[in-house]
Amino acid sequence: MRYDVWAPDAANVEVEAGGRRHAMAPSPVRRGWWTAEAEGEDYGFVVDGKGPFPDPRSPWQPDGVHGLSRAYDHGAFAWTDGAWRGRPLAGGVLYELHVGTFTPEGTFDAAVERLDHLVALGVDAVELMPVAAFPGRHGWGYDGVHLWAVHDPYGGPDGLKRFVDACHARGLAVVLDVVYNHLGPSGNYLGEYGPYFTDDHRTPWGPAVNLDRAGSDEVRAFIVENALMWLRDHHLDGLRLDAVHALSDERAVHILEELAVAVDGLRAATGRELFVVAESDLGDPRLVTSREAGGYGLDAQWNDDFHHALHSALTGERQGYYCDFGSMGALAKTLRGAFFHDGTWSTFRGRSHGRPVDRLRTPGHRFAAFLQNHDQVGNRATGDRISATLSPGLLKVGAGLLLTSPFTPMLFMGEEWGATTPWRFFTDHQEPELARAVSEGRRREFATHGWASEDVPDPQDPETYRRSVLDWTEPSRPEHRELLDWHRDLIALRRSCPELTDARLTEIDVEHDESWIVVYRGSVRVAANLGADPVRLPDGELLLASAPGIRPGGELPGESLAILRMD
Amino acid sequence: MRYDVWAPDAANVEVEAGGRRHAMAPSPVRRGWWTAEAEGEDYGFVVDGKGPFPDPRSPWQPDGVHGLSRAYDHGAFAWTDGAWRGRPLAGGVLYELHVGTFTPEGTFDAAVERLDHLVALGVDAVELMPVAAFPGRHGWGYDGVHLWAVHDPYGGPDGLKRFVDACHARGLAVVLDVVYNHLGPSGNYLGEYGPYFTDDHRTPWGPAVNLDRAGSDEVRAFIVENALMWLRDHHLDGLRLDAVHALSDERAVHILEELAVAVDGLRAATGRELFVVAESDLGDPRLVTSREAGGYGLDAQWNDDFHHALHSALTGERQGYYCDFGSMGALAKTLRGAFFHDGTWSTFRGRSHGRPVDRLRTPGHRFAAFLQNHDQVGNRATGDRISATLSPGLLKVGAGLLLTSPFTPMLFMGEEWGATTPWRFFTDHQEPELARAVSEGRRREFATHGWASEDVPDPQDPETYRRSVLDWTEPSRPEHRELLDWHRDLIALRRSCPELTDARLTEIDVEHDESWIVVYRGSVRVAANLGADPVRLPDGELLLASAPGIRPGGELPGESLAILRMD
Repeated sequence: MRYDVWAPDAANVEVEAGGRRHAMAPSPVRRGWWTAEAEGEDYGFVVDGKGPFPDPRSPWQPDGVHGLSRAYDHGAFAWTDGAWRGRPLAGGVLYELHVGTFTPEGTFDAAVERLDHLVALGVDAVELMPVAAFPGRHGWGYDGVHLWAVHDPYGGPDGLKRFVDACHARGLAVVLDVVYNHLGPSGNYLGEYGPYFTDDHRTPWGPAVNLDRAGSDEVRAFIVENALMWLRDHHLDGLRLDAVHALSDERAVHILEELAVAVDGLRAATGRELFVVAESDLGDPRLVTSREAGGYGLDAQWNDDFHHALHSALTGERQGYYCDFGSMGALAKTLRGAFFHDGTWSTFRGRSHGRPVDRLRTPGHRFAAFLQNHDQVGNRATGDRISATLSPGLLKVGAGLLLTSPFTPMLFMGEEWGATTPWRFFTDHQEPELARAVSEGRRREFATHGWASEDVPDPQDPETYRRSVLDWTEPSRPEHRELLDWHRDLIALRRSCPELTDARLTEIDVEHDESWIVVYRGSVRVAANLGADPVRLPDGELLLASAPGIRPGGELPGESLAILRMD
Repeated sequence: MRYDVWAPDAANVEVEAGGRRHAMAPSPVRRGWWTAEAEGEDYGFVVDGKGPFPDPRSPWQPDGVHGLSRAYDHGAFAWTDGAWRGRPLAGGVLYELHVGTFTPEGTFDAAVERLDHLVALGVDAVELMPVAAFPGRHGWGYDGVHLWAVHDPYGGPDGLKRFVDACHARGLAVVLDVVYNHLGPSGNYLGEYGPYFTDDHRTPWGPAVNLDRAGSDEVRAFIVENALMWLRDHHLDGLRLDAVHALSDERAVHILEELAVAVDGLRAATGRELFVVAESDLGDPRLVTSREAGGYGLDAQWNDDFHHALHSALTGERQGYYCDFGSMGALAKTLRGAFFHDGTWSTFRGRSHGRPVDRLRTPGHRFAAFLQNHDQVGNRATGDRISATLSPGLLKVGAGLLLTSPFTPMLFMGEEWGATTPWRFFTDHQEPELARAVSEGRRREFATHGWASEDVPDPQDPETYRRSVLDWTEPSRPEHRELLDWHRDLIALRRSCPELTDARLTEIDVEHDESWIVVYRGSVRVAANLGADPVRLPDGELLLASAPGIRPGGELPGESLAILRMD
């Protein structure tokens, strides 16, 4: 078989395969690449005598991130989804899922056993947290180091394919979270091969991925071809790009635009629904603006402002990045215009932030919205879900405002039944020094917010991971049943009621005072009472109410929500 | 009088004025600012006991960059240009001028004495190299450290105003080169006051100016208000922004857009022609794309690709950044589409570069073009002008192709008569260590290109500066007269012939082989023969020819150019 690798500055590259080293020759067609024919499943590359290192594009790391790579034939899998063309992002509901804690087994195959729950819930797409190979067995996945390989403890590449195939069989799309802004601290051998990183930009994780300096063409191709690989070879329906604000790129064609163009090409070639969603802290509408209008043309971006506005309105929390939020006016502003920070002062950032969204031209579904997600839960000191803070009534109010919003709503696994299991930050680093640094870093981070060491779970403690696993006895228990039904009812109403998926931001109006808010969605009104005292409801037809006895023209009790159709 | 300064992290700020220290109070209206009333012309600020340092917005540094600042009343100058409304950039010709070497005196007042030469030449606007206060007496000005002060050895703020007033009296606009991407290595006290710089981006000069991190609102205001100050208080007609590719800014509103919006505001408020031109190595049309179409809306950007294409076609040079240029096809491509690198591989950069210009929507005058400029001359080892390399015939061919181009042509002082004086890199650093570092750095830089130490002029040697001063006996000498007349004739033809200022890139066509090129400009043909052998001219009306005896339908001799109007 043929082995290829990019190593532009190397004088000599060999491939170690089948236990032997074979010389590689410079590619006659691709600048900086080396190529060789050799036999062997497990292989690595030796660069100027150093190595063997795993393949930067390794498809499989059965022996961990430091081990040899294993050849893998994408053509061998017996797909059954030949009729599948995908589901559009517009109008859909996402469900964020972490393979390692979705089930006790923590595998793709075990996750398949729970898909019927998602079908019954009514979501459109599963959003998988990163599955690229990362160090250790357990982890969130954001310190992946083999971006082309599927984490072997989850089930490896075949496991992912079985999962995707099973989702498609049930009408569920699958979105994959991919991390192109950094690599994890252990098992990253890219620097041995070429200029994958640059010191000219700094990210929270160190030197930035080299997108705009010498050698960056191949780094960009590494990213773009990786994205296409997931969509093409693993039949993924979409990608969620992690933290694109850390993709520093001063080129005339931004990597996000290049990536969106490439995915559009695949979309056109296959007729499949494919979409790309960016997690962004830029507050920049350009990401989802059409390329004809000077944007990058991504399908959606995460809307943290909506989360912060909703979370702080419900909980009253004002710490950290919540400090500019909390008023019902902030929530109303994000419902109307997606961004709260549209050029306004951000206390947390110490500067002005964001830019107004063109409400006439930008449909609301270009913003993914959530009441919870892995970060908003897991980045709290003890990983407590919002259900640990809110009353059952306010939990339902939160879900109601989310699922009737003009955005693309996303749930975080277990949110639908108010899971009592926390979702914590956990790692499984094998190097003692790195393990200690991660544990201490976590404690230190929260010490600055007044947390005592012993109250902050140790990420390296296996118990921290285990406590984060969903408890599947919960959804069928009576105390969870009501919230689960509420989510099902809301999603079903959203699907049956075109006013709720109408994504025109110019068509939304909002009325509110400091304790209640009414969202106008065409002839539909979503009335939410976040306060303790009842407020009066208008007349109309009741579509859904979060508590019994609510009637149009009557009272909306404290901490409840009603959805009405006006006559 | 009132003193104000931004020092957001200081616990205590004092102003030293009139030889005494006065406490300052936090501003009640502007976050992080301090304010005090005190008397005294010369002043500085004491930040947490350190200082006094010069004012970051010092209007005048009569005692050098390290000295106290001096108060200056912009309202006191007796302007005579009340009727002046400016000249549009579109259709104009720029003339780049370095005050320190334009005349032996090196002052604004001495430069005024030479303005009639520029009027006779026919240019529209003088582009002043930076005049912000920089260390030492002589220098290019790109290591300025007091961005609000006019270099005192040039004549200080009143000197600049006299110069601008005199230009306006003669119908000349004045553009100022401003440097916002870094400060010089000596006399930069900004860091004593606040977070003006960030380590998150790196430039060739060190940490980047902080445009997008905490505290950046005031840094951006420092830049935008500085730009407005020049245009408003010094009556400048335009700004040339130095090296905007080193302005790293990941905000949703780029500083260039913010600046363009602010200048538009001043334009609307005053009815003056005002323009902003960016020097850019981004190859990005977005800079000059309208804001309605997602661009920044600057008026023009420098077109180095055209320079490289023209320079290498004329000289045959292929070293360094010329290596992808040299063919007549490259020149033809830049004439049609402004950029040569429109996404193509750049050997010098080690990556692909640029993006295509939308030729239908982008007028050619949005690109400033030149055969020479201060960098292209001064960054050569010995500062030799292109006239030292080219035959008189090819010099005229170069000028002809430049001044009939669809771009905004710019001449570098002395180019119009083929000045024999070089224009070298010179500095006047006072600190011995810095002076030595600059001298050695220059030698080292050129040693890598094979230059012997003794052949590279020492920037700190006063003779290096003196040799760079224009010799005003030259333009009236017979051996310079012909080239000067040629430039005057070309500029006059450009002004009288609408085809030549037609900036529609879609209307240009080019025919060429490897030694000649014909540029179609409406019914006008610019035929240039860069080779030695004669070529045949089409029939038509001769508008201008670079050598005697050239007739339509006859021969165009080697190294000559003719401009014809077709019947």
